[in-house]
Amino acid sequence: MRFAKTGHQVTVVDNYLKRTLAKTNKSEPLISTPDLFERAKVFYALTGHHIQVIIDDCTNALALNTIVQRCQPDVLIHYAEQPSGPYSMRGFDEAQLTFNNNTQSTFNVIWSVMTYAPDCHIIKLGTLGEYGTPNIDIEEGWIDIHHKGRTDKFLYPRQGASLYHTTKIIDTDLLWFYVRTYGLRVTDLMQGPVYGLMTDESSLDDRLLPNFHYDDLFGTVLNRFMVQAIAGIPLTMYGAGGQTRGFLNIKDTLQCIELAAMQPAEAGKLRILNQFTEQFSVKQLAEHVLTAARSLGYQTDIQTIKNPRKEQESHYYNAAHQGLLDMGLKPHLLSPDVISEMLLVIAKYKDQIDTSKFMPRFSYS
Amino acid sequence: MRFAKTGHQVTVVDNYLKRTLAKTNKSEPLISTPDLFERAKVFYALTGHHIQVIIDDCTNALALNTIVQRCQPDVLIHYAEQPSGPYSMRGFDEAQLTFNNNTQSTFNVIWSVMTYAPDCHIIKLGTLGEYGTPNIDIEEGWIDIHHKGRTDKFLYPRQGASLYHTTKIIDTDLLWFYVRTYGLRVTDLMQGPVYGLMTDESSLDDRLLPNFHYDDLFGTVLNRFMVQAIAGIPLTMYGAGGQTRGFLNIKDTLQCIELAAMQPAEAGKLRILNQFTEQFSVKQLAEHVLTAARSLGYQTDIQTIKNPRKEQESHYYNAAHQGLLDMGLKPHLLSPDVISEMLLVIAKYKDQIDTSKFMPRFSYS
Repeated sequence: MRFAKTGHQVTVVDNYLKRTLAKTNKSEPLISTPDLFERAKVFYALTGHHIQVIIDDCTNALALNTIVQRCQPDVLIHYAEQPSGPYSMRGFDEAQLTFNNNTQSTFNVIWSVMTYAPDCHIIKLGTLGEYGTPNIDIEEGWIDIHHKGRTDKFLYPRQGASLYHTTKIIDTDLLWFYVRTYGLRVTDLMQGPVYGLMTDESSLDDRLLPNFHYDDLFGTVLNRFMVQAIAGIPLTMYGAGGQTRGFLNIKDTLQCIELAAMQPAEAGKLRILNQFTEQFSVKQLAEHVLTAARSLGYQTDIQTIKNPRKEQESHYYNAAHQGLLDMGLKPHLLSPDVISEMLLVIAKYKDQIDTSKFMPRFSYS
Repeated sequence: MRFAKTGHQVTVVDNYLKRTLAKTNKSEPLISTPDLFERAKVFYALTGHHIQVIIDDCTNALALNTIVQRCQPDVLIHYAEQPSGPYSMRGFDEAQLTFNNNTQSTFNVIWSVMTYAPDCHIIKLGTLGEYGTPNIDIEEGWIDIHHKGRTDKFLYPRQGASLYHTTKIIDTDLLWFYVRTYGLRVTDLMQGPVYGLMTDESSLDDRLLPNFHYDDLFGTVLNRFMVQAIAGIPLTMYGAGGQTRGFLNIKDTLQCIELAAMQPAEAGKLRILNQFTEQFSVKQLAEHVLTAARSLGYQTDIQTIKNPRKEQESHYYNAAHQGLLDMGLKPHLLSPDVISEMLLVIAKYKDQIDTSKFMPRFSYS
């Protein structure tokens, strides 16, 4: 919607994988949204801007080739991945689906662009989780290593906390190979967990809201805390809550993608940008939500539960994120007002909250 | 054969992928060998040792699960990969086959063992080529990185020169994830190019010889040079010939696998060993072959041809390889005698040499 509003021709390709998984795993979003054709129709009625919708599968090389050949895109934004760490850890079927879907869609994106639109700029959604939680500062994708009196530059070492994160590491390996060998243009965005649901475009009509997940599989932690606060039940913190990550507002993800698209990566260079604005521990987030909720009159508390994930609950974390700021990002930082604004939207849908969705339904390790 | 002779129960699973590719790509080995059932029969007749042969596909999870569940192996040696860099660089179909075959067979091996034989030790054939040609010393799989006053230990950074090498990097990413998360036992052997064809077992009967490839797709460089010398045509060196790698005798690959199998990796640790005995540049190898060939009366020379690969032709290279020596490896180093012994075996098959197989048939970059 953002790109269409600023005059770009936009084609969306989706196979509804996440919607299907959400439905079959009882992880439906808080606010049910119409299908993409309907959303494009609503958006057109409100703004006069067209968005072309194609329902197809990026793991099908032939299908993707046809689309890329016909569209001749300047930019291809690759989001076609199963995005849940916990889902990828559930069992063999979920692991296999995640592994095949994510690696094959990336492989096909690379080959489609290389073959049919070689100057097209690929913007790939990676994850900050590719780096894991190392005991040294996290740089933006690359690191100079000094070793036994010699020096070289390498991809920053990566080890993720789930198979999902590992598939994104694999994507980066693949992209870097094809970039350096065939001169593709690629930006790999290492995005942290996103919170929020209001953007300039989604605010036009509730039918345009993003899919807002708050459950143990597809929900992100701040979303879950906010929905728990509105439901009046304790905010469930996994273990000690010292798990620290870089977060960003959904408004800023749109800014970042737009900045990356309008300032394309150089051919033959893999540009890696860390896409987040602030670091928080899970405990800090819980406390922020608690304060905002109480100021709106919602009474709740923090409850520590057994961590279903295999992860460090207390660790060093200091990640660079200067690249997107240098490109022009103006962050929307997390403030009591921002949390309150989100809480009020969630409150409108209070009756639809399914409280059985909060607790971890299985062990993710 | 080596394991069967030393009293182990051996099951071989193969789908003849390499044989099929060699045939359809005019890359047949110098000496044609019977199928695995026939080879097992010959070996049994000569030694009284059984080897069970199963023709099936490791990319089929159900098939592999059934085999692992029934065999309950102590050790699973995973060689089920498309092994040619040049083949993987030929075009989309070859890239897709390599990517899918290699990553899916590794994924299935992990899950079969995890589900049906969790204490089984997986020995995975990696490649020294995962490291590429960095400007710092190559360590055995791991490196301590000191950065801005802090330190952590990581997988040694890896970037390979072909998609095939990249699939092996991906395998290592996958194995390390499952090892650290679920406590598997895994040894990842970073093997350099292998030369030679005589082992204690293959010497029993020519029908037991390894598949000896000397062409541009499946042949390794020393093998190609030796066959060119016997054919009396120039040894074709790609570019400047400064490309340096770690090499080993086929006899030593058997020793290494046996040492790894008899001293299993600890559960939850990914043991990485660099499997080679000596470093040579391509030019040094060509000169060694030239000298040995001339001493046997074969007249030839070295011819520099345009490099069909994208690789550095002159670079720093210093790779650690102490691990297997510490475990007991007794190297068979490359000497004029060793080359002469191989040249004499090849000379027996001189009439079968296909001189059209030496030159690069396409660009690998």
